[in-house]
Amino acid sequence: MKTAILTIGDELLYGQTIDTNSAFLARGLISIGYEPAYKETVGDVIEAVEESIIKLCHRAKLVIATGGLGPTHDDITKKAICRAFKRNLVLYDDILKFIGERYARQKREMPAAAQSQALLPQGCRPLQNNWGTAPGIVIEERGVMFVALPGVPFEMENLFNHQLKPLLPPAPGGKVITFKQLRTSGIVESVIYEKVREFLGPKEPVKVAFLPGYSGVDLRLTVKDTPRSEAEKQIREFEAKIRGQIEKYIYAEGEATLSEAVGNLLREKKVKLATAESCTGGLLSKILTDIPGSSDYYLGGVVSYSNESKIELLNVPAELIEKFGAVSSEVAEAMALGTRKITHADFALSITGIAGPTGGSEGKPVGTTWIGMATDDGVSSKQHIFGADREVNRMRAAVGALNMLRMKLIADEAL
Amino acid sequence: MKTAILTIGDELLYGQTIDTNSAFLARGLISIGYEPAYKETVGDVIEAVEESIIKLCHRAKLVIATGGLGPTHDDITKKAICRAFKRNLVLYDDILKFIGERYARQKREMPAAAQSQALLPQGCRPLQNNWGTAPGIVIEERGVMFVALPGVPFEMENLFNHQLKPLLPPAPGGKVITFKQLRTSGIVESVIYEKVREFLGPKEPVKVAFLPGYSGVDLRLTVKDTPRSEAEKQIREFEAKIRGQIEKYIYAEGEATLSEAVGNLLREKKVKLATAESCTGGLLSKILTDIPGSSDYYLGGVVSYSNESKIELLNVPAELIEKFGAVSSEVAEAMALGTRKITHADFALSITGIAGPTGGSEGKPVGTTWIGMATDDGVSSKQHIFGADREVNRMRAAVGALNMLRMKLIADEAL
Repeated sequence: MKTAILTIGDELLYGQTIDTNSAFLARGLISIGYEPAYKETVGDVIEAVEESIIKLCHRAKLVIATGGLGPTHDDITKKAICRAFKRNLVLYDDILKFIGERYARQKREMPAAAQSQALLPQGCRPLQNNWGTAPGIVIEERGVMFVALPGVPFEMENLFNHQLKPLLPPAPGGKVITFKQLRTSGIVESVIYEKVREFLGPKEPVKVAFLPGYSGVDLRLTVKDTPRSEAEKQIREFEAKIRGQIEKYIYAEGEATLSEAVGNLLREKKVKLATAESCTGGLLSKILTDIPGSSDYYLGGVVSYSNESKIELLNVPAELIEKFGAVSSEVAEAMALGTRKITHADFALSITGIAGPTGGSEGKPVGTTWIGMATDDGVSSKQHIFGADREVNRMRAAVGALNMLRMKLIADEAL
Repeated sequence: MKTAILTIGDELLYGQTIDTNSAFLARGLISIGYEPAYKETVGDVIEAVEESIIKLCHRAKLVIATGGLGPTHDDITKKAICRAFKRNLVLYDDILKFIGERYARQKREMPAAAQSQALLPQGCRPLQNNWGTAPGIVIEERGVMFVALPGVPFEMENLFNHQLKPLLPPAPGGKVITFKQLRTSGIVESVIYEKVREFLGPKEPVKVAFLPGYSGVDLRLTVKDTPRSEAEKQIREFEAKIRGQIEKYIYAEGEATLSEAVGNLLREKKVKLATAESCTGGLLSKILTDIPGSSDYYLGGVVSYSNESKIELLNVPAELIEKFGAVSSEVAEAMALGTRKITHADFALSITGIAGPTGGSEGKPVGTTWIGMATDDGVSSKQHIFGADREVNRMRAAVGALNMLRMKLIADEAL
């Protein structure tokens, strides 16, 4: 079923805020068989919002708008909805009561502005917002369902998942978009391409997109306009062929992260991990602890951003830093060994590098990074030369460390 | 001048890639006096791209499209342009030569697919791409300028800044959008609103938007349709009134981050900082070291994710953890004191909390967080009760720590 997404707000139109809501909605809609066909952004101008609502309701059967539902003067979505559907705002007592109870529970006084949240277009179906104060709005008219959700991502996501989804009619017919994502790390796009090229004929119903990112290259397998069960079978068969070529680089399917995949391996193998970070300054441990339950396998570590902290916290010999420099195989390995010792971890990872923009030299340009790993089997290290961008270098270093760990954990498996 | 932005690609429409290009273009256009008025996304379907190009060229004087210019089968933008403007693709010898030279310099053989990059709509003005292989395309027809740029952000940004901008006619007249952002932390939206409400009359030419985010609330001051110098004067006067009410909460103007603002204060006051993190797992140190040059003031720290690491690395007495729990004022303060001692930092920040989703109890629900700070003046700690979302709780805890440090640094200033 054709669906349109409308995001509302000057901050989106003017590029002050990156729109992540429409991507969330698109993925959510696809997962239940709806097809996002149009996406538009308009500013905080009543006439423009009204025009877009009317136009999109002509082009799609389901229109979801986000943004502009708050209580302040620049929140004009409700007014635009009233104009587009020729309705008045009326007070919804249930919603007013619900909002009042929310404030009472938090022991806060309800401000006058919050009461206006209970004013909604006549005849609409409100979606109760348990995560904020602005309710969602559903209007059904002439075979089209129009929905407005607040723009705060956390509220919008919960309203979509918990309040709107149960109301949506089942997607009609079987001709839908079916896709599956395979995530790889430790292999570059052109090498993957060479390895799988033979399967990419024009008659192959499964289309492959290569999506390179910081964590590696994602492969998106897509089948369009085919009944779901048939498409899933085509994807399964195609996936088997691809896996035959690049199995060990595929760390996850779907949206699972490298950190999650590594975490699952650590948990499974009962390996406790610690980290020592210089240039990444905590990014690696942040990524590891993004995952709920990471305390099962991650002990913690040291951010040894200065030379002194490498020496004092990790017992890296000062002579090593003097002789080889802080960015060297020797210091990376000493950091990993020191970390393993002080934390009693099974495995320790270390990162030391020149993230930039300054600090590079002829022999060690910006981007030069050493990753160390200490295990029962001893210590090793690997050099990477990344690029000129600080943020990218830091991400790649953290991912490089996770990937080194993953390769060790799956190599152990093979024994 | 009214401008439209068209982003092209299934990955954008389906939410697999977050669109950052349109935000970059919008900000770039505003900075030179153009007004982004429409923004649309379409998938990789020739007819849909053609329809959007035609429609947007009727509504705007400048239309910039990005994406779909690559050499692979799903890159259909050039074909859609040819249909929309009724032109053929012809070979541009200069561009072919330029692409060939690029490959030669990199000592790589030019693949056949790359040659197709020199096929461009007849009569267009190509924009030489020094950062990739797909040239940009400019077509001027009936008073409208249509531009197509590649979708790879790095290439698109360089083409926009270095090749397209010099070609754009000066924005006519002085009626432009002028805005300024003030960033606050440590004060909630409704309290700001109460404090500045008296200045928000309908006749006030400066409009204020409140944009709450993890770091605090940003205030966007906007003046539309007024010559730039007059608008800037209005904003300056308005800003002075606002600052009179909430000065100490404003940590930056424009896009500068809280971490940057705190870093500048630390550098200025020659204060060396260290950190100890439990639930944030390195996020605070990651944010601190996002800033180039942060080694001037940030020494590093410890991610004490387990109780053992709090005891062994930070010398937190085991009895404290036993008696008060790891998430307590006592442990937060012991972490800060321990960190200050082992790192010899001037100031140490500590964070211990229950990020969730599990680990909460009746007395200490998910979101309960203690932030500690140790300085020359002794040690203190502050409790926060955030919400149910792990990612949000971690962000708020890191921001809370930065804000506590900032308030200390500016309070010292006042002495």
